[in-house]
Formats: sequence, C-alpha cells, structure tokens
Amino acid sequence: MNGAESMLQTLINNGVEVCFTNPGTSEMHMVAAIGKSEGMRSILGLFEGVCTGAADGYGRMAGKPACTLLHLGPGLSNGSANLHNAKKANSPIINLIGDHATYHKKYDAPLTSDIVGLSGPVSHWVKSVESAESLPRDALDSVTAANVQPGQIATLIIPANCAWDDSIEPLPREDAPSTPCVSDDRVTDAAALLTNGKPTIILLGNMGLTEKSQCIVDKIAQVSGARIMCDTFTTRLPRGEGRCEVERLGYFSEQATEQVKGTEQLIMVGTKAPVAFFAYPGKASEFYPEGCDLHVLADANQNAEDALTRLCTALSASDLAPRKIQRQKQGAGSGELNQFTVGQTVAEFLPTDAIVVDEAATSGAGSFISTATSEPHDWLSLTGGSIGFGLPTSIGAAVACPDRKVICLHGDGGAMYTIQSLWTMARENLDVCVVIFANRKYQILQVELARVGAQSMTKKTLDMLDIGNPDMNFVKMSEGMGVRANRAETIEEFNDLYLDAMRTQGPCLIEVILP
Amino acid sequence: MNGAESMLQTLINNGVEVCFTNPGTSEMHMVAAIGKSEGMRSILGLFEGVCTGAADGYGRMAGKPACTLLHLGPGLSNGSANLHNAKKANSPIINLIGDHATYHKKYDAPLTSDIVGLSGPVSHWVKSVESAESLPRDALDSVTAANVQPGQIATLIIPANCAWDDSIEPLPREDAPSTPCVSDDRVTDAAALLTNGKPTIILLGNMGLTEKSQCIVDKIAQVSGARIMCDTFTTRLPRGEGRCEVERLGYFSEQATEQVKGTEQLIMVGTKAPVAFFAYPGKASEFYPEGCDLHVLADANQNAEDALTRLCTALSASDLAPRKIQRQKQGAGSGELNQFTVGQTVAEFLPTDAIVVDEAATSGAGSFISTATSEPHDWLSLTGGSIGFGLPTSIGAAVACPDRKVICLHGDGGAMYTIQSLWTMARENLDVCVVIFANRKYQILQVELARVGAQSMTKKTLDMLDIGNPDMNFVKMSEGMGVRANRAETIEEFNDLYLDAMRTQGPCLIEVILP
Repeated sequence: MNGAESMLQTLINNGVEVCFTNPGTSEMHMVAAIGKSEGMRSILGLFEGVCTGAADGYGRMAGKPACTLLHLGPGLSNGSANLHNAKKANSPIINLIGDHATYHKKYDAPLTSDIVGLSGPVSHWVKSVESAESLPRDALDSVTAANVQPGQIATLIIPANCAWDDSIEPLPREDAPSTPCVSDDRVTDAAALLTNGKPTIILLGNMGLTEKSQCIVDKIAQVSGARIMCDTFTTRLPRGEGRCEVERLGYFSEQATEQVKGTEQLIMVGTKAPVAFFAYPGKASEFYPEGCDLHVLADANQNAEDALTRLCTALSASDLAPRKIQRQKQGAGSGELNQFTVGQTVAEFLPTDAIVVDEAATSGAGSFISTATSEPHDWLSLTGGSIGFGLPTSIGAAVACPDRKVICLHGDGGAMYTIQSLWTMARENLDVCVVIFANRKYQILQVELARVGAQSMTKKTLDMLDIGNPDMNFVKMSEGMGVRANRAETIEEFNDLYLDAMRTQGPCLIEVILP
Repeated sequence: MNGAESMLQTLINNGVEVCFTNPGTSEMHMVAAIGKSEGMRSILGLFEGVCTGAADGYGRMAGKPACTLLHLGPGLSNGSANLHNAKKANSPIINLIGDHATYHKKYDAPLTSDIVGLSGPVSHWVKSVESAESLPRDALDSVTAANVQPGQIATLIIPANCAWDDSIEPLPREDAPSTPCVSDDRVTDAAALLTNGKPTIILLGNMGLTEKSQCIVDKIAQVSGARIMCDTFTTRLPRGEGRCEVERLGYFSEQATEQVKGTEQLIMVGTKAPVAFFAYPGKASEFYPEGCDLHVLADANQNAEDALTRLCTALSASDLAPRKIQRQKQGAGSGELNQFTVGQTVAEFLPTDAIVVDEAATSGAGSFISTATSEPHDWLSLTGGSIGFGLPTSIGAAVACPDRKVICLHGDGGAMYTIQSLWTMARENLDVCVVIFANRKYQILQVELARVGAQSMTKKTLDMLDIGNPDMNFVKMSEGMGVRANRAETIEEFNDLYLDAMRTQGPCLIEVILP
C-alpha cells in the first residue's frame, strides 16, 4: 500500500468522505487512490477557489471536514481567498496539497514555490510531510486539527514521492478532541454583570449561535433584560420559525453605533468584541461605546453551549420557555422589481430547512429582513470579506445536505470571481437555486467611495467601479456551463421563476435585472 | 496632496502608465487618485488573476512594469497564481495592495491577514508602507525593484491611512538600474569550451533569447558547431521569418533526454540548467547527460547580449551574417480538424508581428511547429506552470502593443481558471483572437497519470480528469461576457472563422471542437 492509499484510508476511517478536487501531475497517486476507494466521494472543480469555498460550505453544514486536493503553490493560491473566508468562519477543512518529490525541490522547477509560506496565513495548522511512512499519522493529525471546535483549517503538504512510496497500514479512527469548557469565574462574572441593572448586550457567534444556544440565551435575556445580538457576518445562523430572535449588528459603523448606543456592558459568546469592517477617516474602529465593559463568556474555541447552560442555571432561568419566532405570511413581492420585493418572494416560498448562502452585498438586506419570519432555515454569510464565496459555498452546503434546498443570493460583481462553480453544480446535479442581483456595478464600492471621503467622482473614477459596458449576460454564461437559467425583468417574472425553482430539483439560475 | 496622489504621480513620473485594477474599500483613495490623473490608464478586471496575468503580459511585451491594484490579502491571493508565473518569467510588475489603516490592524477585522507573508513567495521585493510621507519614496523604490533586468515582482502594501493622509510632493524620474555585465572569465571559459571540439549546446532564456541575442548566438554556432536551444517555456520567444533557428527543449523527459543525448557541454545564457517539470518514479530530474559540463555564461539577471557579443568577438565570429529563417507557405489546414491542421491555418494567416500566447497544453504543438516559418512573431509561454495564464496575459500583451494582433491558443480546461478575462477584452476592445481547443478533458493529466505509474484507470479516476459531463459551451460563455464567438466543428469552418478574425479588429473567440 503506498502513501496515498494509506493516507486516504486513514482519512476515510476518521470520517472524511468528500474530496473537492482540482489535481495536477504531482497529485496523480492521490487521484488514483481516490479512484480505487469506496469511501471517498470526489467532486471536481474547474478552479481551486471552487474547491475551497465548497469545503467551507460543507464544513459549516456537515460539522466535519471535507478535504480539498490542490496542485502545489499555485493551486493553493487560487484557493486561498476562500480559505481566508473559511478560516474566519472557523470551518473545518483539510487541504491536501501536492508538492514536488522531496529530491526534486532543489532544482527549482517551474512549479516550485514556498508552499509552507503560502499556507500559513490561511491555515490554523500546517504540516509538510517527510516520508510515505509518516503520511498516515500526519493525515490523522490533520483530521484532529480540523476538528478543533468549531473548526480549523488544516493543511497537509504532500511531496509526490511520499504519495507513491510504500507506507504503513492505514490508521484506525481516533476520537475528536473535546471542546474546553470555560472556568467558573467566567460564568460568575457574567451572571454578576447580568444582574447589576446596566444596559447589556449579549453578542453571539459560532457555537454561541446554534439553535440550542439561542434558546438558552433567550431565557437569560428574559430574566436579565439583556439584548441578544450577533455579528454582521456569521458562519451559520439558524433563523425563521421556531428559532429565537437575534438582532444582527449593522455593517456600517453609523448603523452599528446607533444599535449599541447606551450599552454599558457587552458579553461575548463564541465571538469577540465587534469592530468596523474597514477603518474610515475620523471614525472609530470599535463598534461599542467608549467605556463599555467587555466580558468574554466563551471565545470561539470554547464550549459556548455549556457556558450558556451554566450561566442560565446561575440566573435561575433554566425552567423558562424560550420565546420562539412564529411563521408570518407576507405574500409574494409585487410592484417594482427590487431587492425588497424579491426578498418578499424569497421568504414567502422558502422551503422548510432551506439553506441561504448570502453574497448579495448591497442587494441582500431585502431577503434577510423578509426571511426573519419565514420557514426555519440556515443563513450562511461571507465571514472573511473575500468576494467569490457564495457560489462555491452553495456547492458544499448542497453536498453536505442533499435533502435541503440551497438558495444562493449573489451580487453580479461577486459572482464573477468564481463563476466556474456553476459547472460543478450542473455536473453533480446539486439542488441549488442561484439568484443573481444584476445592478451592473460594484455598488458597495460606490457607497464606500463617498464614505471614505475620497473626493473624486469623475467618470474615470466611477468607471473603475462600474461593471456594465459591456453588460454581462448570466443566462448565457450559466447555460454555457450546463445550468438552466432565466432572466427576470419584472417581479412577476421573478415570482414565477423562483416558485418553479422551489418546486423542482436541481441547479438553476435566475438573473434579476435591477433598475 | 495625499499619499495616494503623490504615489501615483511618482509612478507616472517613472514611466508607469497602466494599472490593472480590482479595488475594494481600502483602495478607494488610490481609485480616486487614478480617477483624477491624466497619465495612468485604468483597466478593470473582474477577478484579480486577470489583473496580475495582464500585468505579466504587459511586462513581457512593454519591457517595463504596469501596476496592479489589489484588495488586501484575498485580492493578492486571487492574483498569486499568475504572479507565480510572472515571477518565473522575470516579468516586471508593481503590485499596489491596499491594507487596513495601521491603527485598525490590531482589531483583526474580517479582511485582516498576513499580507507580507502572502507576498513573499510571489515577489522579488516586498515593502509595507509605514506612513503617507514615506509612500512616494517607497513607490519609487518599487519601480526600481521591478526594473531590475529582465524584470522583478515588486509588491507595495499600502495601509489605507497612508493613502489618505497628507504626503510630500511626488518624486521625479530616476534612472533604472543598469544590468550587470559578466566577468571576463565567464567569456573566456565559454570560448574555451566552444573550441575544444566537444558536442555542445547553448541554452538560451530571458535576455539570451532576444532577437539580437539570437543573431549573435547564431554566429557563434556557425564557428563552433554548437547547437542552439531554448527552454520549453520561455517568457518571450521571437520566431518566424527573419529570426534565427532555436530548437525548443521538449517537455517530457523522454523527449528532452533524446534531444540532448551525447552532449558533453551545456552553456547557459540567461537561464539555468534544464530540469524536468515534475519528478517521476525512477526517472532522473536533470535534463542533461550524467557528467555533462555545465557553464553559465550569463544568468537571468546579467547582461546576456553584452556577454554574447564579447563571446562572439572572442571567437572571431562578429563579421559573419546570421542565418535567418525564410518564410515558407504551407497553405491552410485541410482534412481532419485537429491541432495540426488548425496549427497550419494559424501559421498560414498569422499577421506580421503577431503575438501568440500559448496555454494550449497538449493541443499547442501543432501551432508551434507550423509557425516556425511563418511571419515574424513573438511566442509567450506558461513559465510557471500555473494554469489560467493565457487569457489574462493576452490582455496585457494587447494593451502593451495595440497595433499587433494577439492570438491566444488555449486548452478548454485551463481557460476556465480565468474565464472572466473575456469581459475585459470586450470592455477594452482589445485585438485578441482566442482559440479554444475543446477536448473536454484534462488531457495532459490523463497522459501524466500513466507516466507516473499511478495504476488506476477506473471510471472514478478518469472522471476526475474529465471535464465533459456537462460539455461546456464557450460560445455562450463568451457572448455572455460581450465577446463575439463561434464554434468550429470542421477545419473549413475554422479556416473561415480564423481568417475573418485576422482581417478584423477587436476581440473574438473560436471554439474548436476536437474529435
């Protein structure tokens, strides 16, 4: 059994069952091992950013890692932007990156590069394999690293000869690491803050945002009067009917500052103190009032559900019933075709347990607002700000949850970064409905241009933020990659297309032409 | 004048006149500065790999750097694969990468990452700017670094406040660094090798491959009997009528080993000793016989033309006339539609001074062979092995040389990595004819799978290397991005479409359906 085969069986033994691949010559023994295997599904992407984004979506929804198979430094580079997002999302991912044979590196062949150096910034854990014999152990260590809760990016760099040389037998299953619980002090201090009568916000993220966590926090809020909020961009936000109310922090500092005004205490659960996405001249970076008391109940890697349970007990709130959101019918959108009418329709016909992947940027608020009281669903956001996450992440979510409809809300500009994703959706016949909001500009940047006080609104400046001229045709591009597609120029057209998409299986795309 | 404005004017003062951009919020002051400027042309890419690949093509053809404008770590990551190629090509490029304001970095906002760490592996020179006052000097240093012959990747990381704060006046033009000449020993030793009667190959690359260098080497070959060869993948290879004969080293070690068999001496000019692209079990990595004497006349950063001139004089060959290639008409292709008949047509109607960008992989040999005796042209190859170079590089070549036709020969698999490039071609109305060889598979990998001895040819294995199912339609994708496109299913159809493309201006795409 060669290194590749033993590595692969070790991964399979430890619960890894999907590989998002874009291989090259140095990965051929791993390709062959996957080809001979029973327990590893291989899903091909035409670009590595598709693979890593898909692994992010898979990790968020499956709660365990998929692996990617990438071709040396350039393959990793192409996947890095979505690994950046996944790292900020704390998604579990294992990257298998082929490298030149150990004895070939000294020749500085064309594909030689510093893969360890490229891996560090987008990984929590990096290991360069030294021999075929050590590869299975390294692979198991990568699983352990990826499974550190809520998840980590583990990158394994595999020289070609470590894949093709003889190796040891595959390693059996090992238990995932347990998630550390917080100290009693953290709980006691939080309880004290929540009973001192000062205006308090409990800010949730990661494991502090699960359905279970939401229920516990809601009870805490009932006895303490604290407000419950979450970060602007969250890895996975359970919402809609049956979930509890969680207010999302605004993106712009003007909004966020207004939301948190008067707050004297911030308790973080599974996340850290909120800050501005970008700095702006003359504006504060912190999203909390000066002098606000900051308390971390649990950070992202600690057991938030346990901490909340103990806090709830300390406040004698365990026996309360959480206040759950009721389904509210608002009807489909009508009138002008815009993000709000589209959002109404998205919400009205949202299937139970749908997964919404949101990279709609300035066009996303309409759907987010309307879906607050729709059928229960999960909302996945762009956690790292790196554009081109929505389409690939939808692939991974659909692979992890084949029985759930995925709705991908996407801006036209952002969609072009990883447009190749459509082909993988067609190839795997994934149940994804892509809604493209086509405003033909980088609208967020036109907003930001004014906000940062960059005082040039010349035609040349605005042209740099305009993606019309020529207008793109997403219907043609989508059909070119095998995904059926239609264009909506009125809300009635959108309603028909969306309803049809919700009632049928398989990938489709709706291009919404915004006025 | 703020930092961005003074930086920009400093770049313009030093000959930088094109910026390939994909900006975000942290780059808005640079966008505004470009918008207000007279001397900087801005060309938008929908993905950063388009921008960096374009800068590579521009640098190869203009012989001076363009700049890119990229958005923090993820923007750099998306551009990194083509920077890898550009670095291996020794292309001059200046990357302007926005970063968070210096005081904002400590908050670890979503887009925060180790940009210096990400830059190192794909740059020759990296500088993180510390203040608006130092930015103009840093910008000038980046130009100097990029202009180290034949070219370097210079990366300047610019925190947002260094762009928006007040700065000093722009700096005036400074001379580019001179290229060091080789020592007399190098010349004398080479002359000795060339007169000792042993079978010798002179291997050319970079500045050793210019039209002028070729002429000098040809005279040296006439008196010494040495063979003239070049690397498999070259930055820029002047070929066709009026140029000298240079044999290209084969890609596969079987080919290359056969080509160099019996050679006892290798003299490198502007390049290094040839090695295999990948390691293969049981095959040597070196592309030269054991015991072959290796001599570097000039490395990539030394003045190859000067060294060759001195060597030519030392061999008393200066007065000879170089043997120049004659134009040979072969007629257009006929019969089956394949890479060889297509190549015949490509060669037959190749316009004078065309630029051929080659990422055709297993479909490229036909055109390379046929064009050997066509009109004079430049041939640009994939120097770093990172797929997705051809379309972006064609953009840059067309921007650098608006009066020359660019023909981009591309495999279908590789084209999908940076397919967004088509939109920029349409937007800028660039004179590029893209020929897609659609074989619906990663054919090179099917070849390599067998060659590395990875013994699995199961359907699952081959599916991982197959990009049919569904077949892509490049005509639709191209039209979706505003580039006129047609499909050729016979050689007659191809001949008509190609001839029409050569006779008209502006971007177009021909999808060649290979049997």
